[in-house]
Amino acid sequence: MSKIFRYDNEFRLECGEVLPSLKVAYHTFGSMNEERSNVVWVCHALTANSDVADWWPGTVESGRFLDPEKYFVVCANILGSCYGTTGPTEINPATGQPWYGDFPRVTVRDMVRAHQLLAQHLGIKRVKLLIGSSVGGFQSMEWSVMEPDFAEKCAFIATGAYFHPWAAAFHESQQMALLTDPTFGERTPEAGLKGMAAARSIALLSYRGGKAYDKTQADAPEGYASPFEHRVQSYQRYQGEKLCRRFNAYAYQRMLQACDSHNLGRGRGSVEQALQCIKAPTLLVSISSDLLFPPCDHQVMIDNIPNCEYHEIDSDFGHDGFLVESDKLNDIIQAFMN
Amino acid sequence: MSKIFRYDNEFRLECGEVLPSLKVAYHTFGSMNEERSNVVWVCHALTANSDVADWWPGTVESGRFLDPEKYFVVCANILGSCYGTTGPTEINPATGQPWYGDFPRVTVRDMVRAHQLLAQHLGIKRVKLLIGSSVGGFQSMEWSVMEPDFAEKCAFIATGAYFHPWAAAFHESQQMALLTDPTFGERTPEAGLKGMAAARSIALLSYRGGKAYDKTQADAPEGYASPFEHRVQSYQRYQGEKLCRRFNAYAYQRMLQACDSHNLGRGRGSVEQALQCIKAPTLLVSISSDLLFPPCDHQVMIDNIPNCEYHEIDSDFGHDGFLVESDKLNDIIQAFMN
Repeated sequence: MSKIFRYDNEFRLECGEVLPSLKVAYHTFGSMNEERSNVVWVCHALTANSDVADWWPGTVESGRFLDPEKYFVVCANILGSCYGTTGPTEINPATGQPWYGDFPRVTVRDMVRAHQLLAQHLGIKRVKLLIGSSVGGFQSMEWSVMEPDFAEKCAFIATGAYFHPWAAAFHESQQMALLTDPTFGERTPEAGLKGMAAARSIALLSYRGGKAYDKTQADAPEGYASPFEHRVQSYQRYQGEKLCRRFNAYAYQRMLQACDSHNLGRGRGSVEQALQCIKAPTLLVSISSDLLFPPCDHQVMIDNIPNCEYHEIDSDFGHDGFLVESDKLNDIIQAFMN
Repeated sequence: MSKIFRYDNEFRLECGEVLPSLKVAYHTFGSMNEERSNVVWVCHALTANSDVADWWPGTVESGRFLDPEKYFVVCANILGSCYGTTGPTEINPATGQPWYGDFPRVTVRDMVRAHQLLAQHLGIKRVKLLIGSSVGGFQSMEWSVMEPDFAEKCAFIATGAYFHPWAAAFHESQQMALLTDPTFGERTPEAGLKGMAAARSIALLSYRGGKAYDKTQADAPEGYASPFEHRVQSYQRYQGEKLCRRFNAYAYQRMLQACDSHNLGRGRGSVEQALQCIKAPTLLVSISSDLLFPPCDHQVMIDNIPNCEYHEIDSDFGHDGFLVESDKLNDIIQAFMN
């Protein structure tokens, strides 16, 4: 069920700006046991929300790794998003108006610090498992470095220790598309939606590669009325429009920028040194065809996380494999937890 | 040197529309021998032009595969482009005004038919080599099917027999970015440039993958003033601006659409049947890291072109490998020619 945690103190962001207060929307599933030893904390990805049962099918179910009969599962909406946590669509207490483009840029570390306040509020000092995929992996990795005793075990899925140039180039292209929309900048909830639709279409290209598209978006064998037509064209447009029905362009930009900020090594000597601070036994899972976080980029994590178990899931679904391959993922995570 | 061929007859396009006349801009290098047996015809890619010596370094040089002392090299600007051949920035004879967005969509087959008229005009009935990379490969492959006796030998580099869904999804994302620019549609040469810059940034993502970006766009080890900054951001923007200084948004859209039209099998039973019509001994070269035309997609060409020699160039530069790896390419092509 969905809840709101209100923090009525100032919250200083890494960029130096100060939010007058915080609101964090979160979901919990199952019950905390008396020893408070059955908490699983899930960090969510870019445009997801706190309802992990909704966006990660086959997880919050009996017999799965987020089994609500065994675990107290917590997932909170990230700072700067638009699903109930403080962000561009929420009211700026200083003006009584929505923040929109005035909302400051947040880093992954800011997101984690907001959720640490929620954990304190819930009386959670230690979790059985801290898990995140993609941008959720950025957060769980940061959290493991910022607070090495918080997690008994960690699981980082389809993610990385820093944002590589090609991934950052995907984000810059999305930002360019956003800024091409002249309504981006207007103080309305609908501002920049056309640009965001184009940005989403770009993002999708990085979530699945050629093989996955061949499998799911192949043209009809008989062809189309126009030689310029492909089935995938309406798919890309549809996915863009779909995001516009559930997300906000200012929040989307802040999510892109938060990813851009991800560098576990920033201010800590190096990525390697930061990874070496992770105390918890860690499960690291890559997807063989993931273009954003390819298996070859995992070596730095394998080499530097002191207690690291690595698995590569063989899949054609690219980065989206973390959502599509939930059976394979479930087996790996459950074996790691037990 | 640059020349213009004028064709003062109607030219019917595959879409059914009719151009009142044609203009084709072309370059030649070297001299045709008496037997007319030393012609090498080069088909250019998306935003290139007829000056192959300019855009394909290390080719039109003594001792290389386009050696102007040995060969009469011809390269013509493609229909719908903006480098002198009939296209959106040229004058529509019917109105006396530039075509801009009114210029009809052209297919790869239309491009080839325009260049066949140029070949007739130049008295070229047969070429020693017909070669093209990327979209140039689309044209040379089409030409080899449309006129199987035209080429003594063919070379198709970093290309494919049809446009795969993921590549078409890249194009749709670019179209979405173009259409996000509200100036796209205005009747000026500057219309849609911001959208085209975003589109170019998207295209670049497909030309090189993660490894190439890691090699060329890695962040400075000391980091930047802002945690949101990456070196690659200015690179993407710069490349977008650079294209805006030399290309036109309407022509860019027509180039994207022409690629979308590429399907060697359209109206010919199947891709396989079409490939089987290629008579000339054919050199097929892929780049190991090419995301748009990966080696695995070459099997259909290897299996169906009757006389096919296949090479895979090992390179981290992705699709751009056809420009970057000119030494490796030169060795392969020269061995094939001799």
